[in-house]
Amino acid sequence: MRAAIYRGPGDIAVKEVPKPEIEAPTDAIVRVTHTAICGSDLWFYRGESDREAGSRVGHEPMGVVEAVGDDVRSVEPGDRVFAPFVVSCGRCEFCRTGLHTSCVNGDSWNGDNGGAQGEYVRSPHADGTLVRVPDRYADDEDALRSLLPLTDVMGTGHHAAVSAGVGAGDTCVVVGDGAVGLCAVLAARRLGAERVVAVGHHEDRLELAAAFGATETVAERGEAAVERVRELTHGGAAHVMECVGAASAMETAIEVCRPGGTVGYVGVPHGVTDEGLDIYAMFGDNITLRGGVAPVRAYAEELKADVLGGTLDPSPVFTKTVDLDGVPEGYRAMDEREAVKVLVKP
Amino acid sequence: MRAAIYRGPGDIAVKEVPKPEIEAPTDAIVRVTHTAICGSDLWFYRGESDREAGSRVGHEPMGVVEAVGDDVRSVEPGDRVFAPFVVSCGRCEFCRTGLHTSCVNGDSWNGDNGGAQGEYVRSPHADGTLVRVPDRYADDEDALRSLLPLTDVMGTGHHAAVSAGVGAGDTCVVVGDGAVGLCAVLAARRLGAERVVAVGHHEDRLELAAAFGATETVAERGEAAVERVRELTHGGAAHVMECVGAASAMETAIEVCRPGGTVGYVGVPHGVTDEGLDIYAMFGDNITLRGGVAPVRAYAEELKADVLGGTLDPSPVFTKTVDLDGVPEGYRAMDEREAVKVLVKP
Repeated sequence: MRAAIYRGPGDIAVKEVPKPEIEAPTDAIVRVTHTAICGSDLWFYRGESDREAGSRVGHEPMGVVEAVGDDVRSVEPGDRVFAPFVVSCGRCEFCRTGLHTSCVNGDSWNGDNGGAQGEYVRSPHADGTLVRVPDRYADDEDALRSLLPLTDVMGTGHHAAVSAGVGAGDTCVVVGDGAVGLCAVLAARRLGAERVVAVGHHEDRLELAAAFGATETVAERGEAAVERVRELTHGGAAHVMECVGAASAMETAIEVCRPGGTVGYVGVPHGVTDEGLDIYAMFGDNITLRGGVAPVRAYAEELKADVLGGTLDPSPVFTKTVDLDGVPEGYRAMDEREAVKVLVKP
Repeated sequence: MRAAIYRGPGDIAVKEVPKPEIEAPTDAIVRVTHTAICGSDLWFYRGESDREAGSRVGHEPMGVVEAVGDDVRSVEPGDRVFAPFVVSCGRCEFCRTGLHTSCVNGDSWNGDNGGAQGEYVRSPHADGTLVRVPDRYADDEDALRSLLPLTDVMGTGHHAAVSAGVGAGDTCVVVGDGAVGLCAVLAARRLGAERVVAVGHHEDRLELAAAFGATETVAERGEAAVERVRELTHGGAAHVMECVGAASAMETAIEVCRPGGTVGYVGVPHGVTDEGLDIYAMFGDNITLRGGVAPVRAYAEELKADVLGGTLDPSPVFTKTVDLDGVPEGYRAMDEREAVKVLVKP
């Protein structure tokens, strides 16, 4: 089988690799039909985080079950499924409380089981990890395209909104106009937010934010952005979603948060430790910092119901589609911000 | 009148100063009968935070109203009152939501109104700031001694517990065995915690923690303390109170927090910015950081009711009592950890 491989910064290649096989009775083999390139993949692509050369990449698999181990009960060969960006058992303390990312049996898609940007993956803990798409939608390309973001960015945007405590009638701010930020706009509106101020640097993405329900958009940078948001919100919003994962975005998020408010953060916090979190500002204004790596599996059923019910559609985040051979081009397009998010059809 | 003055690190003196007068119709003049020295006073005493030489000190006033401005409605001369460590108007957006520390008309006790370690203070916004002690208890020395910690440490410990989300049946951890940590133990038990693990460095203070309701105490330091708490809690507690305000204590608090849990922090975060908060650990385990400077005024009536009802008594944190001339000795005793907290009777 063929799969995308990381060879070094800026260098992704599609190579022949061994096809995965059932190794444990709880495994399933999934033929990947749809997957995506994630903003978080750009960290290693840009050399800003370490990754082993030769490792397989991708963590947003959707496809058709090809084989299952003896103990798998929830899916069978032929089922259409998708999976969150981490593997989880579904049975441990943390899975039962909706924190699948802290699963004691958890794993990533980047180990022996293979990255999702390839023809097949092996899903450990298939019963806990895979989300089944109802047969009625199993070959509905529009539905699949709308469900695919539930593997990562839509669940992550939702986690930002949940972590920020967004509820009916709220005024909130989303920092970041990448796919996660855009999904956070969708999520905040879905949770009933009345005003959503989207802060970003790209006019085209902010237009998408507006299409997703942002009531105001702010394209200024740095202190000017903070001033503008404070003006729009009369001193800051009680619910702020940090959807970038960079020190500057975290700083902006804290600065536009109203005293007593909450910053929900979901971006892998690159550089935040180095530059320091402004804990004095947080302390003085009792600003809560809540969030972390999104337990997307916990939200999958709820969000799936809304996607299939037609009230939620994050698929416009996919502004480019490639086949497996196009994966290197997909990374390039995302790195150069030509594409918001790239859909891959192996 | 006489008051304690900061002259430089390690140097507190009691000097003659002008007696405060009513300056605004919302002011009250309070003759201070009881006050205290705070752990946070040690930061400037030790030269670890800046403070203007010659400034008056103390922020935990209790006393008898001597005069009120024309607009003051809630107290009158002769009333026994106490006040939190910040001044608040009681009417603005933040006061109305219980975040008096972000009061838009707020002030500290260390400005022109005079520090609380003196014979008199001027209370701006007397209606919002002063808490009246019912006449029945106005001269009850035991009651006053038990109420005095509500000016700061008891409300702050309570804020740690509230911020950490402590509720009935919970297992929680208190990091720090100073007066605030000890009060956090009281607060956690009052909120229904079943297990409270108190972490500190001083056997005598941990004994007091046990008397306050800590079910286990941990005297180990650093990694050994973390290991011990994790062992006791089978992997960490969902509710952790950081009551020191130092980078090492924050680190411990995060390390003993269970995935998905909350660290409630109330210590002025000295050094946390420099050494960095371990945001990667927080991110990976979805640990919430909530808290900040405690809005003690918001909790005063509730805690006062329990103190006067006999179900709450933080007064054992006062292990030494001095008169006004004894204030310099009080600082020395706290600095050298001879006293947990010093009560001052001007």
